[in-house]
Amino acid sequence: MNKIAIIGASGYTGGELLRMLLNHDKVEITDVTSRQYDGVPVHKVHPHIRDSGLVFRNKRVDEIDADIVFTATPHGASMKVVPDILETGAKVIDLSGDYRYRDRAVYEKWYGIKHTDELESVFGLPEIYRNEIKKANLVANPGCFPTGAILSSYPLVKNNLVDRIVIDSKTGVSGAGISASATTHYPNIADNVNPYKISSHRHMSEIQQELHGFDDVKVSFTPHLVPVNRGIQTTSHSFLIEDISADELRKYYEKEYKDEFFIKLMDDGEIPHLSSVRGSNFVHIGGFEIDETGRVVMLSAIDNLVKGASGQAIQNMNILLGIEENEGLRHYGLHP
Amino acid sequence: MNKIAIIGASGYTGGELLRMLLNHDKVEITDVTSRQYDGVPVHKVHPHIRDSGLVFRNKRVDEIDADIVFTATPHGASMKVVPDILETGAKVIDLSGDYRYRDRAVYEKWYGIKHTDELESVFGLPEIYRNEIKKANLVANPGCFPTGAILSSYPLVKNNLVDRIVIDSKTGVSGAGISASATTHYPNIADNVNPYKISSHRHMSEIQQELHGFDDVKVSFTPHLVPVNRGIQTTSHSFLIEDISADELRKYYEKEYKDEFFIKLMDDGEIPHLSSVRGSNFVHIGGFEIDETGRVVMLSAIDNLVKGASGQAIQNMNILLGIEENEGLRHYGLHP
Amino acid sequence: MNKIAIIGASGYTGGELLRMLLNHDKVEITDVTSRQYDGVPVHKVHPHIRDSGLVFRNKRVDEIDADIVFTATPHGASMKVVPDILETGAKVIDLSGDYRYRDRAVYEKWYGIKHTDELESVFGLPEIYRNEIKKANLVANPGCFPTGAILSSYPLVKNNLVDRIVIDSKTGVSGAGISASATTHYPNIADNVNPYKISSHRHMSEIQQELHGFDDVKVSFTPHLVPVNRGIQTTSHSFLIEDISADELRKYYEKEYKDEFFIKLMDDGEIPHLSSVRGSNFVHIGGFEIDETGRVVMLSAIDNLVKGASGQAIQNMNILLGIEENEGLRHYGLHP
Amino acid sequence: MNKIAIIGASGYTGGELLRMLLNHDKVEITDVTSRQYDGVPVHKVHPHIRDSGLVFRNKRVDEIDADIVFTATPHGASMKVVPDILETGAKVIDLSGDYRYRDRAVYEKWYGIKHTDELESVFGLPEIYRNEIKKANLVANPGCFPTGAILSSYPLVKNNLVDRIVIDSKTGVSGAGISASATTHYPNIADNVNPYKISSHRHMSEIQQELHGFDDVKVSFTPHLVPVNRGIQTTSHSFLIEDISADELRKYYEKEYKDEFFIKLMDDGEIPHLSSVRGSNFVHIGGFEIDETGRVVMLSAIDNLVKGASGQAIQNMNILLGIEENEGLRHYGLHP
Repeated sequence: MNKIAIIGASGYTGGELLRMLLNHDKVEITDVTSRQYDGVPVHKVHPHIRDSGLVFRNKRVDEIDADIVFTATPHGASMKVVPDILETGAKVIDLSGDYRYRDRAVYEKWYGIKHTDELESVFGLPEIYRNEIKKANLVANPGCFPTGAILSSYPLVKNNLVDRIVIDSKTGVSGAGISASATTHYPNIADNVNPYKISSHRHMSEIQQELHGFDDVKVSFTPHLVPVNRGIQTTSHSFLIEDISADELRKYYEKEYKDEFFIKLMDDGEIPHLSSVRGSNFVHIGGFEIDETGRVVMLSAIDNLVKGASGQAIQNMNILLGIEENEGLRHYGLHP
Repeated sequence: MNKIAIIGASGYTGGELLRMLLNHDKVEITDVTSRQYDGVPVHKVHPHIRDSGLVFRNKRVDEIDADIVFTATPHGASMKVVPDILETGAKVIDLSGDYRYRDRAVYEKWYGIKHTDELESVFGLPEIYRNEIKKANLVANPGCFPTGAILSSYPLVKNNLVDRIVIDSKTGVSGAGISASATTHYPNIADNVNPYKISSHRHMSEIQQELHGFDDVKVSFTPHLVPVNRGIQTTSHSFLIEDISADELRKYYEKEYKDEFFIKLMDDGEIPHLSSVRGSNFVHIGGFEIDETGRVVMLSAIDNLVKGASGQAIQNMNILLGIEENEGLRHYGLHP
Repeated sequence: MNKIAIIGASGYTGGELLRMLLNHDKVEITDVTSRQYDGVPVHKVHPHIRDSGLVFRNKRVDEIDADIVFTATPHGASMKVVPDILETGAKVIDLSGDYRYRDRAVYEKWYGIKHTDELESVFGLPEIYRNEIKKANLVANPGCFPTGAILSSYPLVKNNLVDRIVIDSKTGVSGAGISASATTHYPNIADNVNPYKISSHRHMSEIQQELHGFDDVKVSFTPHLVPVNRGIQTTSHSFLIEDISADELRKYYEKEYKDEFFIKLMDDGEIPHLSSVRGSNFVHIGGFEIDETGRVVMLSAIDNLVKGASGQAIQNMNILLGIEENEGLRHYGLHP
Repeated sequence: MNKIAIIGASGYTGGELLRMLLNHDKVEITDVTSRQYDGVPVHKVHPHIRDSGLVFRNKRVDEIDADIVFTATPHGASMKVVPDILETGAKVIDLSGDYRYRDRAVYEKWYGIKHTDELESVFGLPEIYRNEIKKANLVANPGCFPTGAILSSYPLVKNNLVDRIVIDSKTGVSGAGISASATTHYPNIADNVNPYKISSHRHMSEIQQELHGFDDVKVSFTPHLVPVNRGIQTTSHSFLIEDISADELRKYYEKEYKDEFFIKLMDDGEIPHLSSVRGSNFVHIGGFEIDETGRVVMLSAIDNLVKGASGQAIQNMNILLGIEENEGLRHYGLHP
């Protein structure tokens, strides 16, 4: 049995790791840490995780005995513990933004935090970086918006088809975390749509990093909070450099994703739905339409807490452990 | 007292006309017609409109005695009754798409219906066509998406600032009407975001008609159904021809809308919310941001059934009657 | 013009008072106070109330110049300001629980606060205490749950029909107020039903006070938080002392409420809906069924912020001012 | 591998059977039938079930080759196919109401259908009838409301503690099935609470059958539709025959359910949440409070499509197959 620890397990991503890992046949959870809830049984925070026997502990890094450690810690906090964890010989999958950037200056600009180490990390999007992840000691699990945005647009930039991409994303409220705030106050969300950080969300820089690589494409991003618990619906509006047909467009996606277990391409006229991926690690990609102005419309649906966070982290864990990549992740979405 | 009739009063727009007109001091409702509900008291269909004394009647056009007639009839049905109503001497405000197009060929292409008359109509967006509406006998009340989209982008095209606009709209489900369908089945909407007709919604042609007039701007449109009862949140992504500052951008909007009672410009950093306009005729416009790729982000919020339909129709009625434009429409939105 | 002040105007009930009073033809608002938001324009807190010219001020009671003062202050805070306001000659409508109890010991038990004065007050439920309200200087505006519960059950106890009543209420989240908390965190509310204080909610004592008066009926109460913004749906399960028919049952309600503008009795088989009263001061009452075990099922729907708070307060204000009781309150509910 | 067929697999309960059985290690699905969708791949109806290879077929009963057959057919339709299926040697788990009643006259009264056979069936609530189910050929899977209601009240009647029970249930909309109707039209559900069949829902008779057995307790039931996708929250108000303490009350439940994997008793002060059981087969039971009028308040939360339908059916299947009762059903609820 592979031993797994979760640092900072009292948030939603911690809860999701527990939900899925406790039914994963190849691992056992040895430690769940929390400063705030030291000594508290897990079900007091995650009321669905009952009779697990797990209790939050405020452990020091050197007290942790694990093969893989998930750091579900806030941005800026991960970099304070990850180097020490790596020294114990464990591999780390970090769910914060701390290790996602190839250029640390970009991180520092967008997160407003001075980076304190120079560790090598791999961007943990297996559909693009699977081979690099296999060899990594430190995997930077991607952000939720970037996961939906990158996967829905990647074939466009890889094949140099478009010169501008506008990502218009709609996210469920669980993306804001387990802590209450005016933003997540029910009457402010229900029956509302809340655009926010409309030209300056930090995930734009992460999307740009991954989509820029290929060419000089302009990438813009605007997120919206919608009255949904889980899920990110991404609408990607892109502008063709040269005319192609909708059929050709689809072929680029089929070629790119044909062997990917977690990516499902919708039939013609079929729309990806959040409910279809709810609670699951699947990505549904659809759209494949081009309007008369040369605009490509691509759509994706993910569960922000699963493929957008903890499920993808487990997918990375499976790769690091050399077991089946979809182990513990095969369950379908919870529709309706 | 001005006499008002509503043809096709059993849908949501009919219900909204009733809700607002029954508390309007300058008009009385003389007829509410419905084929399906002939003889049925209004509250059996609109359960909030109680003790009005009104009963649906299946009346012929020539039986109607009114100064102003609202035709809240389906696309294609309006053109069958509007000519006869005009012959009675009444003025008509049509809530369907039948009279919105200057070029009837565009209508026929997008609605798939042969147009049967050549009546002159005015596009009933008072903030742009107020003077024309004053003199009209037939006002074509705009579509819901176009109202939010045009008002949020009009100063951009009027001042020739942008060469491409992508309208990404999120609408409440009441926009789909009072009749149940798989699309509006609660489990298909709740906790979901449903993009639809992603490159081919007919309202795109109506938006294009109004925004094209000034220049050769490319206009694209994608609507999404969100788990909201009322409201359309519009995010307009536009691309600057030449650099301007956010302050200059705002000034164009302030100049255009400074005397408009129903348009409220948000402060810097303030987001228009659907809840702020819920049930009201107000339009909240915000955004005023420009990102590093030269993309302008503008936002608007309207109630699709009020400013996007029946409220705007009453605003047009007030103009036709020569009374205060906001009579019966001054109530604030229902936040929270 | 009657001068009106609102003490503590930055909460939801304050916002609702503003929304309705700013379109009330017989009053003008002279003061809106808030300690927290001194100097802040009203729209920064209530984003729908724009261009009112009103600014929150942290005024002392003796600086306020008003004929009627609404105290929208927390429980325990009202009793600290109400005596001084009354000394200025203004009449007071208090929206807290401080003056609702005939027996102050009951208040002290359920609110855990020592009461500091002995002022005479009238329980501000006009459908029951209209004559007393006319002569009052201090009106204690009822709680939201009690309003829906009392009105749906009052004819049962007044006519001595039942010996036990179980009130099972479902409330929208705005009842929890404008401040965010774990309770109102969107992911804890959406797609959930949260019973709370299932045998010990303080509103039970207020309901009991009003329903006990007539006879020795046992009254129980359990509230539930449902994913709704506004509204309280009350299901009242009562047990008949002697058999009566459903028709007789209905007649008691018709007799009691026949002249009440704000109370609407549903037709047979018609259910009161929250949407029918949303944003309005109406109370919809239905049910009128008796099952084979002798259980009477009565239902009511109110908007918790309107008839359950600010609308009823304005109704009381109209009575105190001797103007039409429904002035400024005639608008219908916002369905859908 | 055990061979499983699903008759009538195109509804929500069919979708849920597929979702869970396709990840069940001890069974394979050999047939999924549908008249309406003959030849249609499963994902066209259940968009989350992709790449299963399954296609709906309109098969005759004698063409089906299975060890266990689930009949997810409408009330009245099951009795037309079940006898023939049993003749093939397969065991049947019927999800309709057809075989739930010990007294067929009660069925005929409440369902308005003449029963056409005299087959022996077992009421498939394993926590009560496990031993009978083991030996059965035909298991009548309980209704959704009865599952939540019976389990939350069973220890009360088994131990003769109460003489009257009022079940006030709040259900998600998926309980109304996959077909759209005015009832499930989003704007009629969202921001609303809809009581229905307030004194005459047919599930009352099923609850009464199971709770009456022990004593002459009066059982009433009122369901409400709430804006929730999945889940039934049950509040059970019962009246003590003799005083007991809350601690004693809890002990009866602990004794009854101590070995039940799927039943979780909440801690003191902890409320069962629908989100905690969403998508899972768990039942959360809480409350354990007694008010001053002698009213016991008990609460339960289930997922209506899982423990209230398909999950419980799989639990019954596991029992019939003699494998672990929680096989394929161990996953936690999807909170948040």
